[in-house]
Amino acid sequence: MMFDHDADKPVLDLTPEQSWNLLEHTSHGRLATAVGGAVDIFPLNFGVSERTIYIRTAPGEKLAALTVHDTVAFEADGILSDEAWSVVVHGTARQLQTEAEIEIARATGVSPWTPTQKESWVKIEATNISGRHFIFGAQPESF
Amino acid sequence: MMFDHDADKPVLDLTPEQSWNLLEHTSHGRLATAVGGAVDIFPLNFGVSERTIYIRTAPGEKLAALTVHDTVAFEADGILSDEAWSVVVHGTARQLQTEAEIEIARATGVSPWTPTQKESWVKIEATNISGRHFIFGAQPESF
Repeated sequence: MMFDHDADKPVLDLTPEQSWNLLEHTSHGRLATAVGGAVDIFPLNFGVSERTIYIRTAPGEKLAALTVHDTVAFEADGILSDEAWSVVVHGTARQLQTEAEIEIARATGVSPWTPTQKESWVKIEATNISGRHFIFGAQPESF
Repeated sequence: MMFDHDADKPVLDLTPEQSWNLLEHTSHGRLATAVGGAVDIFPLNFGVSERTIYIRTAPGEKLAALTVHDTVAFEADGILSDEAWSVVVHGTARQLQTEAEIEIARATGVSPWTPTQKESWVKIEATNISGRHFIFGAQPESF
């Protein structure tokens, strides 16, 4: 993907299409949840299908956080020595219930970090996506 | 750092010392905030000194989120093809006010992703740190 920064602009706002394209080629992200004002963050692998994010999880803290308060934020990024990108999705999380939905989720090829016998699937439906691409280097000195 | 997993245990809980050591050798993380139930997540560079996390930011959304609701979660990770680690810190965020504090923050060598002329420093004082190390590979099939 080409990132055409305007001259002297180290930060480029990405289009939703560019942002989804980056997510579709990434497998690792972080999910942020807030339950009763207690914010938490979970690293996880994910899959993307039809602009929806799929994650597999075991019953527990993360799944409970999603069930109690379904508004979440999700982030993935890619960092090289001289450039980086980051995509943030805001949306709602919902546990998958039907076999048809779970088939779609499985087809994204996501595998969890933590081996889990008990399989729970959650999808994140995006209400907003934003992405930025950064060129490192000539940063102004701070005073 | 050596990660001594018990036989057949793909996940290893790290000690606080191991977790801080990983953070001290990492420059990129993500900060999760919750304001009025609206969870958000920000990629950023950070520094560590005396088991405190320092970030530099411009006035705006992120700084406002920290000021309104100072309980935050912070995550950093490292991912290789066959192993990964992740460290999560829960704590409180506070904007630095004194030049003495800002000197400590500057000395950590953190540089922001987004060039910023106006310099605001925030520190995250940890109330809890947890780290895990994962060995990928032989994961049980899910049913």
